[in-house]
Amino acid sequence: MVDPVAIWTYDWVPEGPRGFVRDMRLRWACEEMGLRYTIETVPFDGRETNHLDRQPFGQVPFLDDGPVQLFESGAALLHLARKSDVLMPSGPVEAAQVEQWVIAALNSIEMVTMPWVVLSWSKQQSDAIDGWLDKRLGQLEVVLAGREYLVADRFTAADLMMADVLRLELLRAHGDRPARKAYVDRILSRPAFKKALADQLAQYEAADRAREENEDA
Amino acid sequence: MVDPVAIWTYDWVPEGPRGFVRDMRLRWACEEMGLRYTIETVPFDGRETNHLDRQPFGQVPFLDDGPVQLFESGAALLHLARKSDVLMPSGPVEAAQVEQWVIAALNSIEMVTMPWVVLSWSKQQSDAIDGWLDKRLGQLEVVLAGREYLVADRFTAADLMMADVLRLELLRAHGDRPARKAYVDRILSRPAFKKALADQLAQYEAADRAREENEDA
Repeated sequence: MVDPVAIWTYDWVPEGPRGFVRDMRLRWACEEMGLRYTIETVPFDGRETNHLDRQPFGQVPFLDDGPVQLFESGAALLHLARKSDVLMPSGPVEAAQVEQWVIAALNSIEMVTMPWVVLSWSKQQSDAIDGWLDKRLGQLEVVLAGREYLVADRFTAADLMMADVLRLELLRAHGDRPARKAYVDRILSRPAFKKALADQLAQYEAADRAREENEDA
Repeated sequence: MVDPVAIWTYDWVPEGPRGFVRDMRLRWACEEMGLRYTIETVPFDGRETNHLDRQPFGQVPFLDDGPVQLFESGAALLHLARKSDVLMPSGPVEAAQVEQWVIAALNSIEMVTMPWVVLSWSKQQSDAIDGWLDKRLGQLEVVLAGREYLVADRFTAADLMMADVLRLELLRAHGDRPARKAYVDRILSRPAFKKALADQLAQYEAADRAREENEDA
């Protein structure tokens, strides 16, 4: 029997990011694929410095799969997805398109949405970033109005990554983009997503209880 | 004989982006690999809408390699790199690390540098984005202080992408980061980079002359 992969994440996070810590991308992929995995943790406290040997930006997730040890959720997702044809079509043309759209989610969409979100969190605002976001979301709307899934007329790693980038609450509340809304709703209705989300929330609730017990002791 | 790959870019660009249009990432890869390629163009004028069927965000480059047609410079670079071991080690562990660092360049570094540059261009400023940039560049400094190349003790696609992200002039002038400076200088001294850069500049100079001749006619 093959050893399970290990997905590394924080042992605890505050309320805000719960459900959005990026280990979700890997939990969700494993659930879709029926791949055995374990969740391992590094301390949230001291995260800026306590695991730089595994993740040079102090973030999570990172992945252990035998000798393959990866950070960057995009790279780890592609590595997992290539283990079967569940999330990655076996034909080279479609496989390249999945990779293209995973990277588009990270470099054409998230590169714009994330700074917009950082500015919103900081109560700052920039016309330049607002305009960039609305342009990108408008271009993506045209794509999503024309298809149910990004590649191969079925759910792949491309949709997993794109929907994960688009599902931030601030972003879902921004702008009237019916194709994007329908797409995100459709992708997030998947049982594997719901299972991964429930598991992440349960992990952090258990961590809360453990912290409370430590404080009571 | 195998048909050359086709790298698609704009037929002309203003002075500012010359040398930085992202077809550089693919020209440079082909030059490193000794891979035959042609340069094909779409009009810069009307770029927002005139090639959306090939690049849904109206950008360049995109790549033709027989039935594989890709946009996203990161995906196209990985596709090209996998054709040999020149830019992509053949071992699966190191190959996964190259992919990890290509995606890190796009999603952990460029996701921060590009909004910072967009704000600079717009004469806007944000403490939140400035702080995010300095944090990331500080983390990257620790990585680059410890090694000459990102993966496998030799130049790979990871260094090509990371150096291309870091070589923007605004960014090179920002902050005192000696390891980053030495790394960028080292990578940009490669003959294949210089050849690709000279070719892109020559293409746009020729386009200038063609425009002038049209105006004179």
